[in-house]
Amino acid sequence: MSNSAAVPAEPRRGRPGYDRRGALEVAVRVFNEHGYDATSMGMLATRLGLSKSAIYHHFDSKEHLLEAALDEALGGLEQVLDEPGARRGTQTARLTYVVRRAVEVLVDRLPYVTLLLRLRGNTAVERAALERRRRFDDAVSALVRAAQVDGAVRADIDPAIATRLVFGMVNSLVEWYRPTGPEGARQQAGGLGRSPIVGAGQLADDVLALVLDGLRRR
Amino acid sequence: MSNSAAVPAEPRRGRPGYDRRGALEVAVRVFNEHGYDATSMGMLATRLGLSKSAIYHHFDSKEHLLEAALDEALGGLEQVLDEPGARRGTQTARLTYVVRRAVEVLVDRLPYVTLLLRLRGNTAVERAALERRRRFDDAVSALVRAAQVDGAVRADIDPAIATRLVFGMVNSLVEWYRPTGPEGARQQAGGLGRSPIVGAGQLADDVLALVLDGLRRR
Repeated sequence: MSNSAAVPAEPRRGRPGYDRRGALEVAVRVFNEHGYDATSMGMLATRLGLSKSAIYHHFDSKEHLLEAALDEALGGLEQVLDEPGARRGTQTARLTYVVRRAVEVLVDRLPYVTLLLRLRGNTAVERAALERRRRFDDAVSALVRAAQVDGAVRADIDPAIATRLVFGMVNSLVEWYRPTGPEGARQQAGGLGRSPIVGAGQLADDVLALVLDGLRRR
Repeated sequence: MSNSAAVPAEPRRGRPGYDRRGALEVAVRVFNEHGYDATSMGMLATRLGLSKSAIYHHFDSKEHLLEAALDEALGGLEQVLDEPGARRGTQTARLTYVVRRAVEVLVDRLPYVTLLLRLRGNTAVERAALERRRRFDDAVSALVRAAQVDGAVRADIDPAIATRLVFGMVNSLVEWYRPTGPEGARQQAGGLGRSPIVGAGQLADDVLALVLDGLRRR
């Protein structure tokens, strides 16, 4: 912990221990443990070891924390759609790219995506996030439909249903996937437990293999 | 509503409106709306239009309601493993049977399975249910492994990971699938909204098509 105001990346003087991003990370962890509705600013302050006013220095309200957290998850996914891999090549190559990158974003921002996927839509912030998620799903559905028209993807499944099923598989990772290494091992304690150990790259390969070609050997 | 005690299938005299099963169904709906932890017996009594003592006539406690509800979900899944289709034929045929029947059980007992899948493991009842769920997963993993040994299922994905991914897809149905017909239309209002309309049989076909052969056309 530094007291020097000359180093810009450090926390500000008088707000030691957490910068905005660090406070957000802890808040998201508490939201995921207790549920957003059941979490109070007092609980967050206790967990952060800060006064409530120190949190308000970074975030106006609990809802503002939620908004920032959901933007981490949604912004990551939306950005994928703008990347060259999602906009060039065959429709199937674009779809493959988007699914792989979605797995990577999910692994990279696991607590944020977990929070997003557990939303109930009780508040305006939550409903806005669900609407952004729907637009992302719609964009992927359009890719599936285009790949069907191309002839490379089977046309006997409705594109919206195929998208829901594929992202059902991808999103289910938040329920059991934990990063490999010490941090992952620490997190293994909760949830379904005894998760298979797999790295993020292998996991994306496995998801793509199943999504594109299924379990049956040819 | 009958006052005749001579008809055994009717609710008892003095407990009109709900039999044990009916009370459980309403309780599960309230658990899913508000979360189990946030639901009180008083809330359940209000929703049922009963006194708390009328609920205690059927169930000793809130935890007893949870236990009965989880048993509906888990019992349905476990029974699948004992059915002839899961115990005869090639390993791949057995696996296919189990996945199809799991989709059917999920659709048939949607609120119960939804409750199961949202458990956090905060109480002994929840942890026991998660342990039963793990045993079911382990049985499916063993089927995947046997089908790999048989040579009919690809061997380049760890069986435990393949099982998690396949059931990730299957279980995600609770997030968006609503039965077709008026009841389904009524339920569409909440959640992710704008769900694709599909019957349970078609849905099981779509899941199996993706799980076995993937999106890519051959």
